[in-house]
Amino acid sequence: MILDCAHYQDGSRQHTGTLELEEAAERCGGDGFVWLGLHDPEPEELRKVAEQFKLPELAVEDATHAHQRPKLEDYEDGYFLVVHTACYLDDVEEVEFGEVHLFSGPDYVIAVRHGRASELHSARERLEARPDLLREGPAAAVWAVLDKIVDDYQPVVEGLDNDVEEVEVAVFDDEGDQTRRIYFLRRELAEFYRAIHPLLLALDRLESATRSDVTPLLRDHLRDVEDHLQRTEEEVVTMRDLLTGILQANLAVIAVQQNDVVKKISGWAAVIAVPTLIASVYGMNFEHMPELKLTFGYPLALALMLAIGYGLHRTLRRAGWL
Amino acid sequence: MILDCAHYQDGSRQHTGTLELEEAAERCGGDGFVWLGLHDPEPEELRKVAEQFKLPELAVEDATHAHQRPKLEDYEDGYFLVVHTACYLDDVEEVEFGEVHLFSGPDYVIAVRHGRASELHSARERLEARPDLLREGPAAAVWAVLDKIVDDYQPVVEGLDNDVEEVEVAVFDDEGDQTRRIYFLRRELAEFYRAIHPLLLALDRLESATRSDVTPLLRDHLRDVEDHLQRTEEEVVTMRDLLTGILQANLAVIAVQQNDVVKKISGWAAVIAVPTLIASVYGMNFEHMPELKLTFGYPLALALMLAIGYGLHRTLRRAGWL
Amino acid sequence: MILDCAHYQDGSRQHTGTLELEEAAERCGGDGFVWLGLHDPEPEELRKVAEQFKLPELAVEDATHAHQRPKLEDYEDGYFLVVHTACYLDDVEEVEFGEVHLFSGPDYVIAVRHGRASELHSARERLEARPDLLREGPAAAVWAVLDKIVDDYQPVVEGLDNDVEEVEVAVFDDEGDQTRRIYFLRRELAEFYRAIHPLLLALDRLESATRSDVTPLLRDHLRDVEDHLQRTEEEVVTMRDLLTGILQANLAVIAVQQNDVVKKISGWAAVIAVPTLIASVYGMNFEHMPELKLTFGYPLALALMLAIGYGLHRTLRRAGWL
Amino acid sequence: MILDCAHYQDGSRQHTGTLELEEAAERCGGDGFVWLGLHDPEPEELRKVAEQFKLPELAVEDATHAHQRPKLEDYEDGYFLVVHTACYLDDVEEVEFGEVHLFSGPDYVIAVRHGRASELHSARERLEARPDLLREGPAAAVWAVLDKIVDDYQPVVEGLDNDVEEVEVAVFDDEGDQTRRIYFLRRELAEFYRAIHPLLLALDRLESATRSDVTPLLRDHLRDVEDHLQRTEEEVVTMRDLLTGILQANLAVIAVQQNDVVKKISGWAAVIAVPTLIASVYGMNFEHMPELKLTFGYPLALALMLAIGYGLHRTLRRAGWL
Amino acid sequence: MILDCAHYQDGSRQHTGTLELEEAAERCGGDGFVWLGLHDPEPEELRKVAEQFKLPELAVEDATHAHQRPKLEDYEDGYFLVVHTACYLDDVEEVEFGEVHLFSGPDYVIAVRHGRASELHSARERLEARPDLLREGPAAAVWAVLDKIVDDYQPVVEGLDNDVEEVEVAVFDDEGDQTRRIYFLRRELAEFYRAIHPLLLALDRLESATRSDVTPLLRDHLRDVEDHLQRTEEEVVTMRDLLTGILQANLAVIAVQQNDVVKKISGWAAVIAVPTLIASVYGMNFEHMPELKLTFGYPLALALMLAIGYGLHRTLRRAGWL
Repeated sequence: MILDCAHYQDGSRQHTGTLELEEAAERCGGDGFVWLGLHDPEPEELRKVAEQFKLPELAVEDATHAHQRPKLEDYEDGYFLVVHTACYLDDVEEVEFGEVHLFSGPDYVIAVRHGRASELHSARERLEARPDLLREGPAAAVWAVLDKIVDDYQPVVEGLDNDVEEVEVAVFDDEGDQTRRIYFLRRELAEFYRAIHPLLLALDRLESATRSDVTPLLRDHLRDVEDHLQRTEEEVVTMRDLLTGILQANLAVIAVQQNDVVKKISGWAAVIAVPTLIASVYGMNFEHMPELKLTFGYPLALALMLAIGYGLHRTLRRAGWL
Repeated sequence: MILDCAHYQDGSRQHTGTLELEEAAERCGGDGFVWLGLHDPEPEELRKVAEQFKLPELAVEDATHAHQRPKLEDYEDGYFLVVHTACYLDDVEEVEFGEVHLFSGPDYVIAVRHGRASELHSARERLEARPDLLREGPAAAVWAVLDKIVDDYQPVVEGLDNDVEEVEVAVFDDEGDQTRRIYFLRRELAEFYRAIHPLLLALDRLESATRSDVTPLLRDHLRDVEDHLQRTEEEVVTMRDLLTGILQANLAVIAVQQNDVVKKISGWAAVIAVPTLIASVYGMNFEHMPELKLTFGYPLALALMLAIGYGLHRTLRRAGWL
Repeated sequence: MILDCAHYQDGSRQHTGTLELEEAAERCGGDGFVWLGLHDPEPEELRKVAEQFKLPELAVEDATHAHQRPKLEDYEDGYFLVVHTACYLDDVEEVEFGEVHLFSGPDYVIAVRHGRASELHSARERLEARPDLLREGPAAAVWAVLDKIVDDYQPVVEGLDNDVEEVEVAVFDDEGDQTRRIYFLRRELAEFYRAIHPLLLALDRLESATRSDVTPLLRDHLRDVEDHLQRTEEEVVTMRDLLTGILQANLAVIAVQQNDVVKKISGWAAVIAVPTLIASVYGMNFEHMPELKLTFGYPLALALMLAIGYGLHRTLRRAGWL
Repeated sequence: MILDCAHYQDGSRQHTGTLELEEAAERCGGDGFVWLGLHDPEPEELRKVAEQFKLPELAVEDATHAHQRPKLEDYEDGYFLVVHTACYLDDVEEVEFGEVHLFSGPDYVIAVRHGRASELHSARERLEARPDLLREGPAAAVWAVLDKIVDDYQPVVEGLDNDVEEVEVAVFDDEGDQTRRIYFLRRELAEFYRAIHPLLLALDRLESATRSDVTPLLRDHLRDVEDHLQRTEEEVVTMRDLLTGILQANLAVIAVQQNDVVKKISGWAAVIAVPTLIASVYGMNFEHMPELKLTFGYPLALALMLAIGYGLHRTLRRAGWL
Repeated sequence: MILDCAHYQDGSRQHTGTLELEEAAERCGGDGFVWLGLHDPEPEELRKVAEQFKLPELAVEDATHAHQRPKLEDYEDGYFLVVHTACYLDDVEEVEFGEVHLFSGPDYVIAVRHGRASELHSARERLEARPDLLREGPAAAVWAVLDKIVDDYQPVVEGLDNDVEEVEVAVFDDEGDQTRRIYFLRRELAEFYRAIHPLLLALDRLESATRSDVTPLLRDHLRDVEDHLQRTEEEVVTMRDLLTGILQANLAVIAVQQNDVVKKISGWAAVIAVPTLIASVYGMNFEHMPELKLTFGYPLALALMLAIGYGLHRTLRRAGWL
């Protein structure tokens, strides 16, 4: 589905509304550039776009089905850029990923969104308000898209960070076994890392001073995006490291709990076992057991049991076993 | 055994049927190239091929017995490429490996399959349908073979991924000890990684811009293969990482189970030990034990035992011990 | 808030008191340089400074809100440097971080402090006492600030090192479970590492021989700062490694404790169980049990119980179980 | 002890029998080269050789006592190469190492064997059968020695691989604790790795295209040796990785066993404790206990005990505790 | 404190006894070089030396207080080298570190020892016996000092290696918990590693072919020192790796011990519990219990208890539980 298609020249949109594909292709070749936005296009639709803009065959093949790695591929007069978008679903503690595929040529930028990817309309609006950047050519649109996507990583990082802190508290406050939650959080982080790490390399190449299709002004702006991405990546790496530490700590906490359980059990066992021994003793059938004849023998025996039980209980409580 | 042998020129197969070795060798030297496919050849057979095509001695030695590492070896006017093929046997959760050895010269490509390697006939058919690529020379055949083999890695990845997910579920749902399964899955992944990782380096070198035997069009196509391979490798690395996490989680889960077992046992021990103590008390032989004389002494004692047992049971169940 | 603003020329401060922003900007362009210090500036304040000194737009945007990574960003005629400051709060075993943002141009240095960052007045005083360095231009002020911040890392390292040693003692002297403390110390170290590691790379680039804005004398001085930073980083890395070791040792210590607990419990169980068995034996109701008729049967039985209990106790104590 | 000393020219040995040292040294300088083999030479003997062939002083010092790291050291007109040999002692699961030190000059190769190193006579014989290689100069002898030593690594790898598989089976089939064996196998692998890994670097430098003392033909042959070595190294790395996994799996297996033991114990305890409680009940001394007067009270009580014991046993067995 | 100060020229010491500082400084500038040795100098003393020899200010500041990282710092006409010395205290299993700071200029070498560093007099004597090396200038003295310090690492490695082997034996022979010892050995190794690893980098730069102040002969000798250092480093790395393995093995050994303890306990519990059950049975008060009336009822019951106890004991011993 075509979302928007516009022609930009001299820093401003040349028309309102959405251009037809054919007209857009015709406007190419002049001074400005065309920015076309698609969402989950049908193969047929994409084929038509590819024909109009003469997109590289292998890249189009990649773009028809999602599930590409983040990458930058240079072609004769343009490049193909795959970026993953992320969005955090707090209730299930999961990150949902989408993909944006960008074809950038000398006078066009085509952005193909797959799945629940970051909405890009606001990126376009933000750029339209900056004639100085629009004037720098198609790379400005690439920057605007990347800036939006990387900004949208921030809430994901915050959501995950929040979960990590919750898990920390839960482990050390003994709120039941956290192994499952730790494991699946790590898994989400690993996937998120895979989504952003290769993008760093792609951005690095995009900023390379030897590229002629990125002007110095845009290079500074892309560097700014890369800086945010790097920060995101560092936070993800730190969280993964923290979770590894929590998993180990979790193991130690479980072991300590087990020690406590075993101590508690055996403490109570002792508190019961000794009176039982005393009762067994007075259950012996010897003919000559003077205590048995005492009027207060029975209450005394009970008192002895209670006293010993209580004494043991106190001693063990002091020793931290109960 | 010779599977197929054909001469290609100007983008098309020059004949139907399979050429004789001698004729194929004669046709070399012209404009096109010969593509010869062998399967588990006898040493003698391979010797004859080597003679006809003047293959490098050390590479032929390697190719006579399988068990080579994936590698690219450059010779004076050609190269020798070893690639591992993989196929997933789901019932035993094992990956079976085969090998394909490729000799590429200025006007020939010789593909030697060892073991249950990927079938390559379909690769040939696919290439024969693409005259534009066929025209690019022997590297097109190399690409076709690599593309097929790397595509065949995908079901292996999917099979392993499926097993990893099964193991995840099994660990957290306490379906018995999964250590053995985790261990052997990791082992398969390690072997698979060894099969594909060195190939990345080989492909990288094959795509190097300084090579004259790979045309720009084929370089783009090889880059596409490398991209798929890279994706496969990343998935394998991720799965290995997940399994490491599962093994650690598994340990924690076992420890938690043990805590539960110990709690359950000691809970029931308490439920039994206290009534036993009471029974022992009333088994004492004191002369003056008023309860013993009560008409309802016995049922009262039993009731007391039951009440205490029940009370303990409830308390412990609430505390999560039973 | 503007803390101080001064103009330096020929190695000395050209005036007492603080210059107005406008006057400072006017004095720029001559031979010396202006050093302006701000603390938690309002966005409006920073905007005015940026205007007067024509600071790069993206850097100013970064500087208005803290939470930047340590980095060095080169602009057309100057650079933007982000440095993290650290201060150790011993009572809660936490490191508090602040940030200093430095804009360095051909004839000015602007230092923006965020949060409880290192106080920089002493850095200025120290530099004012060194005309030889002041004469080298704005990079001297950058050096003075970096030198102060990196020196202030030392007490942080010492505080953390002290805690690590305390934890070591606590683990091996069985002073209760240390898992929580180890975990949070590691976390502080990880954050500290993130604060200082990227600075090394930034310093490295600042010292690069190809920079014309850093004179050889200052290069030697920056190298000295880098050397201190490197030492700090190595100590942090070592402490992280030690804590990993302690966490593992902690696990082993807990397991050994558990062994001891189980041994102690079962030892005492044996000491009680055997006399209980004896009492049960003499509680049997056989008609012909000669011991029961003995005058001293009862004391003998008690003596037997005690003797066996004592013997068991001694044996087990020798075996190290009690 | 001098093992053999021969002069090679135009691809063939120039004489039968062993040359005297002096004569060998005289023959140097011509077209061919001298290959001298020593075994555990006395310092005096080595000194004499060094004098005759003007070997570099520091290298000779190294060669007099074994225990050098594998390395390649270039000298003015030759190089010094240290290689470790390995041999697997299956009965004690240990790898025994030896050393071969090679001095290579423009017209001589001196091979010094230390300890139970690979026997090199067969290497010489093999080379003497290949005039084409012999003609390439002293590097051919170096290749022959390296080829033999690296080939001799293969049985070591196979022996270790076999042990690793045995350990795998033993761990998962609960054949007693395998920790000791795993540990010492890993130790052997670590030592083996140390013996072969630096050799890769040395070989890499030896094959460098910028060396004039290694002809293209020999470079291909050395590359072949390096390829085998690389394969060996990869197998060692894989085995180390497997053993790390086994050690972790071992820990999990032990924990699971402990769970089983604890379950079994407590199961049997329950089977005994409940009948004991019943017996205690009927041992109470209440006056009014109707069951006690029943004619079949006793057998009924016994039957009750048996029934409960049996019922518990069955229930627990089904639950997998017994 | 000045230990020795001598002027060397044409390969020999130009005088006996120690030169005064002023005279030494005067002799500089000629053909030979001055070698000055200091031990724990007062700041004042060092200041005077710095003045006489015009040492670089920042390096002198470093040298006045120890605790520098091993490093090589180049200055305009010389360099500053920090080396750590090590000595093993076997009784406390600790490595004691010292520092040697070397200032090397065109015609002087100043060696400053801090703490219980390697004694350097023997290095001087050894060099004085080698006129060929002395003639090569101040770098010869630097070599002599480095050679001595690196040689002194060997006994440290041997001492640590010995301890590692002792720990290995202790862990597998169950000589009590070794966790503490393993932890502190690892700690010493980590510190030792930190002392030697950066020196490798420094040596590497010192040997660089582009340095004009190190002659080819000395370069060979420094390479020899580096080779020894590399070997030391590899041994340290291996020992660290071994200790990591031992710590893991230790955990498994402790777990196995716990299994054994639990088995033993429960075995004995069974041996006692069953006779107790029998005694309880015959302690029941049923009126009709034929066994109670038997003349040999009591001895038969005792025999039954013994028989069952013995049978259980045997069965469990065979199963490896006792």
